[in-house]
Amino acid sequence: MSLWVTKFGGTSVGSLEKIRSVAHRIAAVKDQGHSLVVVVSAMGDTTDDLLEMAWNIGNELPERELDMLLATGEQQSAALLAMTLANINCPAVSLTGWQAGIESDSQYGKARIMNLDTSRIKKELAQGEVVIIAGFQGISPDADITTLGRGGSDTTAVALAASLAADHCIIFSDVDGVYTADPRIVENARQISLLSYEEMLELASLGALVLQPRAVEFAMLYHVDVEVRNSFNNNPGTLITEVAEMEEHRVVSGIAHDTNVARIALFDVPDQPGVASIIFKILADHRINVDMVIQSAMRDDRNDIAFTIERSEFNKARQVVNEIVIKIGASGMSYSTEVAKVSIVGAGMQSNRGVAAAMFDALARQDINIHMISTSEIKISCIIDEDRIEDAVRALHVAFHLDQGE
Amino acid sequence: MSLWVTKFGGTSVGSLEKIRSVAHRIAAVKDQGHSLVVVVSAMGDTTDDLLEMAWNIGNELPERELDMLLATGEQQSAALLAMTLANINCPAVSLTGWQAGIESDSQYGKARIMNLDTSRIKKELAQGEVVIIAGFQGISPDADITTLGRGGSDTTAVALAASLAADHCIIFSDVDGVYTADPRIVENARQISLLSYEEMLELASLGALVLQPRAVEFAMLYHVDVEVRNSFNNNPGTLITEVAEMEEHRVVSGIAHDTNVARIALFDVPDQPGVASIIFKILADHRINVDMVIQSAMRDDRNDIAFTIERSEFNKARQVVNEIVIKIGASGMSYSTEVAKVSIVGAGMQSNRGVAAAMFDALARQDINIHMISTSEIKISCIIDEDRIEDAVRALHVAFHLDQGE
Repeated sequence: MSLWVTKFGGTSVGSLEKIRSVAHRIAAVKDQGHSLVVVVSAMGDTTDDLLEMAWNIGNELPERELDMLLATGEQQSAALLAMTLANINCPAVSLTGWQAGIESDSQYGKARIMNLDTSRIKKELAQGEVVIIAGFQGISPDADITTLGRGGSDTTAVALAASLAADHCIIFSDVDGVYTADPRIVENARQISLLSYEEMLELASLGALVLQPRAVEFAMLYHVDVEVRNSFNNNPGTLITEVAEMEEHRVVSGIAHDTNVARIALFDVPDQPGVASIIFKILADHRINVDMVIQSAMRDDRNDIAFTIERSEFNKARQVVNEIVIKIGASGMSYSTEVAKVSIVGAGMQSNRGVAAAMFDALARQDINIHMISTSEIKISCIIDEDRIEDAVRALHVAFHLDQGE
Repeated sequence: MSLWVTKFGGTSVGSLEKIRSVAHRIAAVKDQGHSLVVVVSAMGDTTDDLLEMAWNIGNELPERELDMLLATGEQQSAALLAMTLANINCPAVSLTGWQAGIESDSQYGKARIMNLDTSRIKKELAQGEVVIIAGFQGISPDADITTLGRGGSDTTAVALAASLAADHCIIFSDVDGVYTADPRIVENARQISLLSYEEMLELASLGALVLQPRAVEFAMLYHVDVEVRNSFNNNPGTLITEVAEMEEHRVVSGIAHDTNVARIALFDVPDQPGVASIIFKILADHRINVDMVIQSAMRDDRNDIAFTIERSEFNKARQVVNEIVIKIGASGMSYSTEVAKVSIVGAGMQSNRGVAAAMFDALARQDINIHMISTSEIKISCIIDEDRIEDAVRALHVAFHLDQGE
């Protein structure tokens, strides 16, 4: 007898028929004598539909009330799954975030889990119930309902797996696992069977939407092995685990790309201490996330500073940056929303020289111009023109032999 | 400055446009310097839609999970109304049943409010917020979400008005108030301006759907004046209040009718002590509500017992009654689902003789056969054939001069 924490994404519970199929999968595990905690997302497009309704009210919506609204989606799918399980004689009880003891901070829309009080979950498990948890939500110190941001159900599941010391943590979605590149772009992309936390974190942060980055952070922090699998078949998935178990020789594990990118450049920024901090503090105050930053010393006392943000935040950012230009006395700004980011990720990079050079070479051979570069120990990212992103992904997939098996 | 508790029914918040109109009504009261607690139902057909989805899962649904599912409807409309108010610069905060401290028992689907902890509501009011409450729901002693039964939002509003010692309690729906009879049947039915709690209770119990009976009980118990008004206009409504204020001379205030009735008769029930209690205990154990009961001594040691139930529970009841017939040794049963109940209600009946005779006479003149009769101090109900129910309502409306003004 072991304890399983599983999560089913929105597509996996997108209709009553799909919920029934999920229920049978759960009942089969339960019938083998295992205990189950099941985290669910909202059905299909429910969250988007609720958001669309809210945006019809106005542009400035109180985030507390948005969370109150959005949290209903997961509550509904949790209740429907519990009913479906009861209907096939598998005892189940659904819990909201607050009932499950998911205690978060008060950052509505992107709250962070601060503590887990799993007493209710343990009580229900002890009574033989399958415990269905509404994912993506928590309760603030003021007893308000919060949501954990897009993909927050992943974090709910991994945090619960850590806290309950689960034997298995399985994230079910509508893909088989993590791939060496987006299979829609690279025909012979392969599924990766084993990934380190660090690699998954980079891939998740860089646009591979299989697992929320914060969920990977939780897994890394609490040493939770996470398996990513497809709820619509029984194919083996991708296991995300400690680096010690990793194959040593693999230099690059996967290619990620992201088109939700915009690039902004400030010209002739005065070269004084504290100017950069002013710029990025103002952006942070407006909740604009900055990704890559490059500062280039052009002349003696003036610099150019370029950075990238999420393209979906561009309109908001543009106004803010115009104010910054005036405030700091820069000479002007330019921007592009037609850029994209391509990244190579691999734990083996740390001990291999020449990886960056190989990446730049592969892109150069395709006549792809690189606008910005950013590196970490296990990844290299390049900003390029958006209309060349598919060529870049394909070229890198070949250059690092990702089509040739592990 | 006074405190208003208002409730808006499902039709009144049935679309974003209607919610906007409700928001402006609330803001106008707030602008006059008053405090507001606003209880909302789910938007339009939301509850029915959720129920229909659930029934597609199976016939035997765990009631705890149904409540978990249904409670989301009011949470959504409460959040949407709070957002709409914020959008017109009226500060508002929405609260679920558990956040609002609506503590109920654990009878899922028809839970009763046991206690109100209004500390959170008072805190929000003190901060100048309009407090929007998701109606129809509470929290059980085990921290489970409960619902209060159809129309439960009325009860939420009246209970809060009592507990907060509100100056005004107004139930907004899509009708102007309580009528002397159903205006769809009686063309010249008049709106009643003033009703006693007892009269409203009888009318509500007898099928006038303007106000949930339990809400009226609460109002009576805690002496809350309740005004029933139309959210779509500014017409005066119906005030439900202490009997002392009532006009003395009005014998009959209104006619109620109900077609959700089925009649069951047991033949030759042994005339032994305890037999009746066996019958009605078994029905209660199966959660079948019995309304009227008649026992007629036919022969020395055998009785016939007839009773009425809700027609919507007839299929369940039929099986149970068949078992009862065998268990108690009755000779058989008969039933009819083509009956209906017509009632006259009026506080003045207590001091007026001959009201029953006048009712029976009016029905007899229309050749309407009476199957069962039941009386209380302020009402008389008759079971008649369903196809004569409209004739009966019209005849009684004329017979008691309800078309002639107050």
